[in-house]
Amino acid sequence: MKTTQMLQTYPAEINLDRDLLARVIDALVECSQSCSACADACLSEDMVADLRKCIRTNLDCADSCATTARILSRHTGYDANITRAHLQACIAACRACGDECAQHAQMHEHCRICAEACRTCEAACTELLNAIG
Amino acid sequence: MKTTQMLQTYPAEINLDRDLLARVIDALVECSQSCSACADACLSEDMVADLRKCIRTNLDCADSCATTARILSRHTGYDANITRAHLQACIAACRACGDECAQHAQMHEHCRICAEACRTCEAACTELLNAIG
Amino acid sequence: MKTTQMLQTYPAEINLDRDLLARVIDALVECSQSCSACADACLSEDMVADLRKCIRTNLDCADSCATTARILSRHTGYDANITRAHLQACIAACRACGDECAQHAQMHEHCRICAEACRTCEAACTELLNAIG
Amino acid sequence: MKTTQMLQTYPAEINLDRDLLARVIDALVECSQSCSACADACLSEDMVADLRKCIRTNLDCADSCATTARILSRHTGYDANITRAHLQACIAACRACGDECAQHAQMHEHCRICAEACRTCEAACTELLNAIG
Repeated sequence: MKTTQMLQTYPAEINLDRDLLARVIDALVECSQSCSACADACLSEDMVADLRKCIRTNLDCADSCATTARILSRHTGYDANITRAHLQACIAACRACGDECAQHAQMHEHCRICAEACRTCEAACTELLNAIG
Repeated sequence: MKTTQMLQTYPAEINLDRDLLARVIDALVECSQSCSACADACLSEDMVADLRKCIRTNLDCADSCATTARILSRHTGYDANITRAHLQACIAACRACGDECAQHAQMHEHCRICAEACRTCEAACTELLNAIG
Repeated sequence: MKTTQMLQTYPAEINLDRDLLARVIDALVECSQSCSACADACLSEDMVADLRKCIRTNLDCADSCATTARILSRHTGYDANITRAHLQACIAACRACGDECAQHAQMHEHCRICAEACRTCEAACTELLNAIG
Repeated sequence: MKTTQMLQTYPAEINLDRDLLARVIDALVECSQSCSACADACLSEDMVADLRKCIRTNLDCADSCATTARILSRHTGYDANITRAHLQACIAACRACGDECAQHAQMHEHCRICAEACRTCEAACTELLNAIG
């Protein structure tokens, strides 16, 4: 990922710590990809009928992380209210998806890996939310 | 839009009022399209340098509405926490974008129309958020 | 949808017919929403295991239509190659999804309605593709 | 990125080479983030009026790469026509965006880095397209 390089070459001020920001964006992008892949892996499992909630939460989390990554990639005309509210929403999605995937982690490796991505992303978003105040 | 028809043929229960839900989804989809178009219209204005914040907020609002529309289009494995947090985030985006576009409404018709879409969407999301409680 | 109004207030030239463009964008937005909803409706069916391909194709088509709607909502710095290639990709997605949903149309009303949205969208995109040449 | 791990734990067959697939998905995700960031960096430049086409092409490329990354992250109910058409569309977007950013590469570091991401992504997508045949 070129996230750090892109942040370093942004031509104006950024109110937030660029290292933290890069780490959060990368976690979001990784979580979004993992959730898209996990939804599809669940869809191919024999026991797909038991994984409906997992698939749905994966899809929500993939969309939420993608949108939050984009919002955090923009610094022009920064509005803390927008950033804060989307971090909170994304934390809710990551927590729900991490919890759901964790329940299937022993049975499905893709759920175990995806739960990890959700936990990492939730922690990174929470750290940034606290930094914004 | 076939939103109402799709909601009526969903094969399981939906915890929320289907008419309200259809209205909110349609408002989100309309707002997302208007914001994408407004960002691009601003980008073509002679005074683009004065519309930077408007373009940025349009892009955020377009993404936020698109994600929220998708989340509200899913009912399987419903999780009120996810829905609530994304409605709140989307309300923040619509309010910021509506405020920003309203400032340029007398000068740019596309901003006037887009502000309208943002206000309608903010109101619809707020109504649904109150209904969820 | 405010698609027509947004197109009419775009401040520069648009190389394509605005009425056709509005019709295509609206068809794309409708198809994207229908496909998201159909994926979720399929996920709640008892026979979800028989609907795996339908869910997957719905998700692809929802993403493809959303991206194409955004590209067609931008007119600044128009590049016919980008527009053409994305219309072609979207036509492939709508055709595959329409075919897949049509196979379940007699059993599932949501698939019947979604197939309709896909066919309408495929036809609209094809018309625009021919107009671009 | 956990792309390789997610591909390795997918429970069914994948018709394509998993290493190549992981490389392409990662390139798409990186390019999408770089393009979102470059659009915003261009928007903050003093000479924003000269960067309109660059911003627009960045936004198209960001959307196209995001959609293609999702399609390639799904393997259930694989349809080569959908994959092929979206790779072709994405190649068109990456080429246009790489060309546009390359024109500003000496003046704007973010354009130079983004052009690199676009070239890498275009090459990766082309390699996969050739592998599919």
